[in-house]
Amino acid sequence: MCSTAQTDHRPLAVTMGCPAGIGPEILCRLFSRADTLQGGPAIVVGDPGMLGRVAEHLGLALEPVSWRPGDPVRPGTLPVFRTGTLDSRAVTWGRPDAVTGRAMAGWIEAAVRLTLDGICSAVVTCPISKQSLREAGYPYPGHTEMLAALTHASRVRMMMAGDRLRVVLVTIHEPLARVSGLLTVDTVRDCIEMTSASLRRDFGVATPRIAVAAFNPHAGEGGLFGDEEGRIIRPGMAAAADCGEISGPWPPDTVFHQAAAGRYDAVIAMYHDQGLIPFKLLHFQDGVNVTLGLPIVRTSVDHGTAYDIAGQGQADPSSLAAAVRLARTMVANRAAAAVS
Amino acid sequence: MCSTAQTDHRPLAVTMGCPAGIGPEILCRLFSRADTLQGGPAIVVGDPGMLGRVAEHLGLALEPVSWRPGDPVRPGTLPVFRTGTLDSRAVTWGRPDAVTGRAMAGWIEAAVRLTLDGICSAVVTCPISKQSLREAGYPYPGHTEMLAALTHASRVRMMMAGDRLRVVLVTIHEPLARVSGLLTVDTVRDCIEMTSASLRRDFGVATPRIAVAAFNPHAGEGGLFGDEEGRIIRPGMAAAADCGEISGPWPPDTVFHQAAAGRYDAVIAMYHDQGLIPFKLLHFQDGVNVTLGLPIVRTSVDHGTAYDIAGQGQADPSSLAAAVRLARTMVANRAAAAVS
Repeated sequence: MCSTAQTDHRPLAVTMGCPAGIGPEILCRLFSRADTLQGGPAIVVGDPGMLGRVAEHLGLALEPVSWRPGDPVRPGTLPVFRTGTLDSRAVTWGRPDAVTGRAMAGWIEAAVRLTLDGICSAVVTCPISKQSLREAGYPYPGHTEMLAALTHASRVRMMMAGDRLRVVLVTIHEPLARVSGLLTVDTVRDCIEMTSASLRRDFGVATPRIAVAAFNPHAGEGGLFGDEEGRIIRPGMAAAADCGEISGPWPPDTVFHQAAAGRYDAVIAMYHDQGLIPFKLLHFQDGVNVTLGLPIVRTSVDHGTAYDIAGQGQADPSSLAAAVRLARTMVANRAAAAVS
Repeated sequence: MCSTAQTDHRPLAVTMGCPAGIGPEILCRLFSRADTLQGGPAIVVGDPGMLGRVAEHLGLALEPVSWRPGDPVRPGTLPVFRTGTLDSRAVTWGRPDAVTGRAMAGWIEAAVRLTLDGICSAVVTCPISKQSLREAGYPYPGHTEMLAALTHASRVRMMMAGDRLRVVLVTIHEPLARVSGLLTVDTVRDCIEMTSASLRRDFGVATPRIAVAAFNPHAGEGGLFGDEEGRIIRPGMAAAADCGEISGPWPPDTVFHQAAAGRYDAVIAMYHDQGLIPFKLLHFQDGVNVTLGLPIVRTSVDHGTAYDIAGQGQADPSSLAAAVRLARTMVANRAAAAVS
């Protein structure tokens, strides 16, 4: 069968995120654009009262309408799958609490359920408050861990994706002085394998070209500036079998330039800032966070709740728009990969 | 007196670097451009035989002519201050040795002498071989240390400068796992002070806006991911007096984007790749290496000898052209600062 992807007519499920943050605002801005639903349908999983309040505040001619499974999605409307009993009048901008946390978590659970059940095609998430998630009694440090638990995924990783650069992180939120001790042959191998699998299935890359960044300047200059390259990274690369064209460890100060010039499909970064400094330099507005390892497609904005500007009409929906576009592309590529 | 800079009619002294590398080639390419000497005169300190051999090989209508102090610099020629007795026919591309090392070091000494004596306005350097410098009996790990010794400078630092970003490094060629232990309050303060002084004197920035990058992701997130920010960086910032607008420590993954957007005049980076990943992403072709702390202006290409392509006619003179332009600007700004 031809591998050209068919359009998926199921809607994307876009969660509203923390109702006291900029989630409702970037959703209203996105859905008020004529082109948002041209690529395919999407619904919001959230609170129609909150969205109506924001649309009115922003002066947008956009009306939240109730959407239930089976309903059509009409352009020009803001279809909302409602769950929970949030009182939107009680929400104060920038003030998340246990009540908003419970609502927010419920929307994530509902969006995952709709997608696992095949009613929606993928989950796109707006930013959440980690603190109110905890206050609401959920034991997850963040979105990713919650999604892994809800979908029974045994291992997940974060990819930052943009048109010019894709980066996958071996370690994330760690003190930099501890990263050397946290790198292992297994985590490097695992990261390469999951990146390769996603490039093939989600991004339609038949033979992934994956660049592995070194840990030290000049890739350690033959052991003069550190030995993690020979001790950990090279063995991890050697252990990653059948993953495409894996190369490195490359000097960190040139590999991202090469990747952005089109030489690689993704870069494996050893620590947070090694990957995020170049990624945010190229994709400050339109970066997308992709979770690798889930049975469903999930993309997310790559910014936070921005409580300092919530409710002020200043929030930029560019990252959300990019997350919606990328989720659609990934859904189409997964469908093509499944039938080819 | 008005602070508008006067044009300096003294020539720049451009060293030829390792004769077995791409230095002679990028010099011939640069001097064959009609616009090279429009901004002011420049001479090469090197070997006319080597330059003639390369010009002929490249098919350039460019003749090396002997230049001595007091001689005029004529557009369309390649004026060379010759010192030493290198036999250009004995040089093999990509094969530096003690003989080429001695010649190369002699050209650096001569260029510094010409500039300290006020005959030339600044030193611009082509790349050298550190190994052949050692083999020739010079005890310096690199260019910078040699220049510091020749000019009796007590402290020097490297700035990478481009149109969009300037970065100064607190630590350079160190294993990343050791950087935390090498950062001190004094080195952070020193780096800020030297950056501020150079921005004022060399770049004409009256009130420097200097961003200090954090060491850890999210600037340590209040101590959750490391404590170098509170323990070392903030005290270093507090100790740097009268340096302009100093801010930070900023999350490393956003500060370079802000600087490239024009918000800061320079960023202080805590380690090699933190500064060079964003710098090379923006200035891969046209980055310039500037030495802070010398009594003379010195700029350099930000690439190496490129022995793998030496003699093949592929070398790109963009970084050398940028180094020449920036040296002229710095000379003019220093002159303006001196009389204002």
